[in-house]
Amino acid sequence: MVSALSHLECSACGSRYDADVPQQVCRDGKPLLARYDLAAASRTLDARALREREPSLWRYAELLPLRDRANRVTLGETMTPLLPLARLGARYGVELFLKDEGLLPTASFKARGAAVGVSRAKELGVTAFAMPTNGNAGGAWAAYAARAGIEAHVVMPRDAPHVNRLETVMTGARTHLVDGLISDAGAIVGRAVRARGWFDASTLKEPYRIEGKKTLGFELAEQLGWSVPDVIVYPTGGGVGLIGIDKALRELHAIGLLDGRMPRMVAVQATGCAPIVRAFDAGARESQFWAGARTVAFGITVPKALGDSLVLDSLYATGGTAIAVDDDSILAKQREIARDEGLFVCPEGGATLAGVAALRERGWIAPGERVLLVNTGSGLKYPDVPFEQPALLAPSDDL
Amino acid sequence: MVSALSHLECSACGSRYDADVPQQVCRDGKPLLARYDLAAASRTLDARALREREPSLWRYAELLPLRDRANRVTLGETMTPLLPLARLGARYGVELFLKDEGLLPTASFKARGAAVGVSRAKELGVTAFAMPTNGNAGGAWAAYAARAGIEAHVVMPRDAPHVNRLETVMTGARTHLVDGLISDAGAIVGRAVRARGWFDASTLKEPYRIEGKKTLGFELAEQLGWSVPDVIVYPTGGGVGLIGIDKALRELHAIGLLDGRMPRMVAVQATGCAPIVRAFDAGARESQFWAGARTVAFGITVPKALGDSLVLDSLYATGGTAIAVDDDSILAKQREIARDEGLFVCPEGGATLAGVAALRERGWIAPGERVLLVNTGSGLKYPDVPFEQPALLAPSDDL
Repeated sequence: MVSALSHLECSACGSRYDADVPQQVCRDGKPLLARYDLAAASRTLDARALREREPSLWRYAELLPLRDRANRVTLGETMTPLLPLARLGARYGVELFLKDEGLLPTASFKARGAAVGVSRAKELGVTAFAMPTNGNAGGAWAAYAARAGIEAHVVMPRDAPHVNRLETVMTGARTHLVDGLISDAGAIVGRAVRARGWFDASTLKEPYRIEGKKTLGFELAEQLGWSVPDVIVYPTGGGVGLIGIDKALRELHAIGLLDGRMPRMVAVQATGCAPIVRAFDAGARESQFWAGARTVAFGITVPKALGDSLVLDSLYATGGTAIAVDDDSILAKQREIARDEGLFVCPEGGATLAGVAALRERGWIAPGERVLLVNTGSGLKYPDVPFEQPALLAPSDDL
Repeated sequence: MVSALSHLECSACGSRYDADVPQQVCRDGKPLLARYDLAAASRTLDARALREREPSLWRYAELLPLRDRANRVTLGETMTPLLPLARLGARYGVELFLKDEGLLPTASFKARGAAVGVSRAKELGVTAFAMPTNGNAGGAWAAYAARAGIEAHVVMPRDAPHVNRLETVMTGARTHLVDGLISDAGAIVGRAVRARGWFDASTLKEPYRIEGKKTLGFELAEQLGWSVPDVIVYPTGGGVGLIGIDKALRELHAIGLLDGRMPRMVAVQATGCAPIVRAFDAGARESQFWAGARTVAFGITVPKALGDSLVLDSLYATGGTAIAVDDDSILAKQREIARDEGLFVCPEGGATLAGVAALRERGWIAPGERVLLVNTGSGLKYPDVPFEQPALLAPSDDL
């Protein structure tokens, strides 16, 4: 179980970089991706070996960047469940599954990126980092930084969920709010890292967060018996999870664990912030900044993602699509998943079912197809969603 | 992997009951406990067999009551991590671990009891149940009931955390608030189950919730390499988790997986609601109702627990103790665990560290002892704890 990491490569121009010193982006400003000696990885990473490994994301060590397991920073990154949704599947005429990322530490899929990103930062000697966030990534990176003993500076929009502010402060990150969007937070972080020499942990401005996210793809393929569903529906803000799943499935193919058939990747966005959908509909290779972005699914309020072209590449290459759903349907589907399957997902999770409903109506998803929803976090992180207040009884009242 | 359940037995008078029909309490009003054919269980449940089983509480099937795995109601009950707390351990002079139950579905240890309790209720043909709750149990039972398609009626104090009200309503339980404490909610439920014929799912008024909780004990023993720590510190309200751990360790001894040495069990309560501590200090076998119960650790606001004598039995039998800690120290230790270990635990989790600090000062815990904290849930379920608000920046500001 030794990392087969070989080098970093620019996702746009293909330039090669040394992986064993801290790196940010390529000199052309584009994200760097980790590359592995896949032949070496395939010699020890197989289905049989995996059966005896611990049920955490670290089980895929050959395809993770960490050199020395002593540098693992862990809060208990369990494998998240892949649950059949039989009632909802019957209702929408598909074979439906949900990957519940709300059971990770900090209750969101951001823990995957933070576990691997912070561990690798520690391994490379980083002692302080800064990052912008819509909330969940800040919460996750703050927690792992505390566990690692690394100094964290986090900037989030003032409208970010209260809970994210709370968890980020509680775990000791230097936390700041900005009167603006995540793009404004990003600009502040950009100036700060230049002025202070901190490591920039912004999405895709360092190469290892996506390596953690990638494990979502490893897990789902393993949990489906080394196969992939027909369709994967992903709530898309920065889109790193979608890029990570795509990268994971291709790497599994390269080492012989998958047959190479890819699922059609679907990016779901909110009608109040749908730059990827607009770009996809126009057949563009990049998105444009979405002015006035606003949706109840705060985690996907990303007006312009650094990885937008990688997301679009995946949608085009897999025969996927992008679809926007409105806030009413997001909240309605969140309630539907909770009431009918017992899973209190986040609004972003609700958005994925709204996407399925719309794509079934359009006929884009065929009857009986195997569809996987990615629920990126727990509904508990959004306590302010509307709900019907229960009746108040006196102690002497009867039900 | 067949359940070795043989019968139910009164915890007080030893009367025997048929386990394969729905049962509540003994005719003397005391809790019934599930008993197993331990010789049969020991033939298939061993360390080697466990290495190849799924990482969920269902891995201990022989010592769980469910007859048919088709009746499993699951939301993905992962094995929760047992994490070393090296920094805090060094500070308090002990070898410290934390079992993080916040990673279970519904973000609390109540999921264990609900998973097994609801599954077994479904297996025995229950179609509707009612229960009182301080919040987390209601959230868990509502979620599993939704997943099972069973009707749930939940009554909780009006002061119960907002998040518990939210999750219980969202997952479709018929939810009621009462202008009083959990004891008032329990009285309403008592009248309702008599009038309506619903199953009574109150703590220890049915025999299987504790069987789910018990898996916490199985897991920690397995994760410690089939050994036990010197001390287990448990935040005690109803105390079912403590009773469950005690029962689990004795069953593991009976089937040969443990050597029979028991950890000293510690019940931590809040100074605002400490009936077990008062009873323990008096050497009593039962607790008295605690008037005016109030603490920031809402989950342990239980003025009089039905299982109080079982909790006290365990403390006496293991050479354990009971200790009360005040709200200030609970919140301070919650922050300390978050800041220094990256774990955002619930206030009840904070109480366990407050208990350790006090017991180290008294010399009751010796230097270097191996101490396990049980964190019963995620801090995310208590978004109203006080914290320092971050500074607000304009987009043009610098860090």
